[in-house]
Amino acid sequence: MSGGAGRPIGVFDSGIGGLTVVRALMERLPMEDIVYFGDTARVPYGVKSVATIGQFTAQITDFLLQQDVKMLIVACNTMAAVAAEVVRQRAGDIPVLDVIEAGARAAVAEAPGGRIGVIGTPTTINSNAYARRIHALDPTVRVYSRACPLFVPLVEEGWLDHEVTRLTAQEYLRPVLAEEVDGLVLGCTHYPLLKPLLRDVVGSGVKLIDSAYTTAEFAAASLQAAGLAHVSELPARYRYVVTDVPLRFQTIGERFLGRSLGRVEKVDW
Amino acid sequence: MSGGAGRPIGVFDSGIGGLTVVRALMERLPMEDIVYFGDTARVPYGVKSVATIGQFTAQITDFLLQQDVKMLIVACNTMAAVAAEVVRQRAGDIPVLDVIEAGARAAVAEAPGGRIGVIGTPTTINSNAYARRIHALDPTVRVYSRACPLFVPLVEEGWLDHEVTRLTAQEYLRPVLAEEVDGLVLGCTHYPLLKPLLRDVVGSGVKLIDSAYTTAEFAAASLQAAGLAHVSELPARYRYVVTDVPLRFQTIGERFLGRSLGRVEKVDW
Repeated sequence: MSGGAGRPIGVFDSGIGGLTVVRALMERLPMEDIVYFGDTARVPYGVKSVATIGQFTAQITDFLLQQDVKMLIVACNTMAAVAAEVVRQRAGDIPVLDVIEAGARAAVAEAPGGRIGVIGTPTTINSNAYARRIHALDPTVRVYSRACPLFVPLVEEGWLDHEVTRLTAQEYLRPVLAEEVDGLVLGCTHYPLLKPLLRDVVGSGVKLIDSAYTTAEFAAASLQAAGLAHVSELPARYRYVVTDVPLRFQTIGERFLGRSLGRVEKVDW
Repeated sequence: MSGGAGRPIGVFDSGIGGLTVVRALMERLPMEDIVYFGDTARVPYGVKSVATIGQFTAQITDFLLQQDVKMLIVACNTMAAVAAEVVRQRAGDIPVLDVIEAGARAAVAEAPGGRIGVIGTPTTINSNAYARRIHALDPTVRVYSRACPLFVPLVEEGWLDHEVTRLTAQEYLRPVLAEEVDGLVLGCTHYPLLKPLLRDVVGSGVKLIDSAYTTAEFAAASLQAAGLAHVSELPARYRYVVTDVPLRFQTIGERFLGRSLGRVEKVDW
């Protein structure tokens, strides 16, 4: 398996939000090469139909399999919610991790038998994927969900600590907080950038669950178990592939990644 | 030309915003058949690159030309801003109208030699298309522009009269209002739904310019001039073609159109 261990991890998202997962992977697994794919020409997925999301997901999975990845990480809650099976069917023996599985495990670990809030895009929330995965792990947990469609545009506008964002968060979270939840799953890869503001809004009694970090932990354990962990003296290599290089891509991308993006490749579909 | 006059008008947008233009056309030209195309699988265009928008625009134009339309209306400010020439080149002899040309003409008519504010998506505003078209008509008009990226998601959330929307509008419009403009062009087809709120924010001294209505006026004049106006005893026929039927499509679409949408056709690309 040592030849295989040098292959990159494939991470993908509908846009740039998945870079929060890449950031967590870089910190947890600094020797692993990563190929990131962001479908920036067709983002956002969170408001599209399940059929369309499935078709786009299949196309991205096939592209990353052609890059000879050793593991696939679905770093997009919307794809994980409605198209994780599409990825697993195509991936064959390649391990597949996704942010919803990771978030669900972290939630149950945080509040066994307790009360969990979940926020995400309309498609993620309507899919009920978090509640299903949480209940598969612990049927006694109570789940309270709320779609927060304005959070993605607010993050992309950079209003991370703005009165408008605070008012929006208060309105979206009111019904969830009324249920006295123990933890709140940030069920969208954009949301970790709102953590300081959300912490103020939810108060100190509610634990924020950021699936980017949990996903990186699972990736480490899974690579170790499969004998696929990469040991190298060389610095890890990172590739960023997108379907469009939109306005403000570099600025927003680096805000998500917490470091310089370097070269970005564009594919034409 | 009478055979040609019975052909439909082709109207297109990146999503559903162009339905505000369809609504104005239905009122102004009740005998005209309309084929509307909304690229709902790839919306929004306002944050994509010029190259990608050009490619998508060409594809939509070719589709509508195959429907034997007698006129094309670019009901998307972003496409009108950066890809109007793509449409005109492909359309040949078919007349092409666009919302930016219409908005620019209305602005100059409203405030000749005056001061005009323009709001729109980041791509529309960065293209400087409104300022160029306004200055081509009247070089003495002063133009003050501001991108308002949160307005589209706020309209789609239905927060048309919400404190969050009001605060957002106040923040976006502050620098434009400081220039004491005479009129404000609503340079995005979503914005007419915010008219009551924007009227409060800008005050009674600033005229709101809604290019949907101006576009319908130009369409009427242009069809008359070309001998293509349709005279019929039959009710007009409306077709709605989209690339995806997302969540909430019907609800949001009917809010834009002000009436029932009826049957929506989906094409797979």
